[in-house]
Amino acid sequence: MEYVRDGAEIYRRSFATIRAEADLSALPGDVARVVVRMIHACGMVDLAGDVGFSPGVVSAARAALRAGAPILCDAEMVAAGVTRSRLPAANDVICTLRDPAVPALAQRIGNTRSAAALDLWGDRLAGAVVAIGNAPTALFRLLEMVEAGAPRPAAVVGIPVGFIGAAESKEALSVSGLEHLVIRGRRGGSAVTAAAVNAVASEEE
Amino acid sequence: MEYVRDGAEIYRRSFATIRAEADLSALPGDVARVVVRMIHACGMVDLAGDVGFSPGVVSAARAALRAGAPILCDAEMVAAGVTRSRLPAANDVICTLRDPAVPALAQRIGNTRSAAALDLWGDRLAGAVVAIGNAPTALFRLLEMVEAGAPRPAAVVGIPVGFIGAAESKEALSVSGLEHLVIRGRRGGSAVTAAAVNAVASEEE
Repeated sequence: MEYVRDGAEIYRRSFATIRAEADLSALPGDVARVVVRMIHACGMVDLAGDVGFSPGVVSAARAALRAGAPILCDAEMVAAGVTRSRLPAANDVICTLRDPAVPALAQRIGNTRSAAALDLWGDRLAGAVVAIGNAPTALFRLLEMVEAGAPRPAAVVGIPVGFIGAAESKEALSVSGLEHLVIRGRRGGSAVTAAAVNAVASEEE
Repeated sequence: MEYVRDGAEIYRRSFATIRAEADLSALPGDVARVVVRMIHACGMVDLAGDVGFSPGVVSAARAALRAGAPILCDAEMVAAGVTRSRLPAANDVICTLRDPAVPALAQRIGNTRSAAALDLWGDRLAGAVVAIGNAPTALFRLLEMVEAGAPRPAAVVGIPVGFIGAAESKEALSVSGLEHLVIRGRRGGSAVTAAAVNAVASEEE
């Protein structure tokens, strides 16, 4: 069969296609580079039009990672998608969703397991890079915790996906005062979220 | 903050929204149920219009899983997205991408690591459910192996994503004679692929 078998060449051609087709003109350079990688992960160049961000998000997240901050993920798929070789400080990649304490905790706080899992992040939240790519309830819970005085993360990649609460949770993050990167609306997910973390972690394309 | 905190209620409302908005009329019932779950994973109801399938794919994949077949994945994210509690026979979920033999193998066969990893599936390919959600080269490689006489899988969920080879590899799967489920074009990815496997694995919504 006829197809491109060279991984580096596939990357080059993919990124060239994205830069030719996507309208990145509204984005600062560092955000645009992250968005190119997010588009690469989902195959949709029009994603660029739904990006929301705070101007300092990429530099804040990158500085935190270089200083050794952990990456706190809401879902195992997000954690699995973070390319460890791109991390500048062998950073911890943490997902507490499968912790045995989570089901009882969810029942006690009257929320989903995805939301309850955040309560186990504890002091690691201070200065962390948070990557929420699945559950709107996890993003809402994060905002509640920060409002209630929890330690503030350095940056939040908040890109939950779906039909109930996804758009609303990302709107709430956008006006939270936290450094943030979102895809407005229903779209998002673990692959795009992990791609954003991977792009922030290293300037290498 | 005001948001729905009950996981079961979120599922119910999400699936009701999808069934109200998505045009599933061209799909047989068992495929439509799988596509609802795939849409749930990506937030895009228009995904239904790009679905390609062989009529027997859901029943073939379900029968294979019930008989204990393994799920062979091209990417760790796909494997991470398979909900183990939905599997009917505590099925193995296998991804060989991080096997230490893969880099040298990739160099020897002149292909990507994602493609080379399939050479380690060996006899497990016979009657397996294959789930390719990331790399077009992995799907092309699978088709080459089967053409060359490798054991045939029971079904292939083939939904790689991206700009170089994704659409073409899914077209090639569609005419391969294998039981298959695809999303035509550039869209796809590990979340949608894992969702399809999860839907096939159990009839529970």
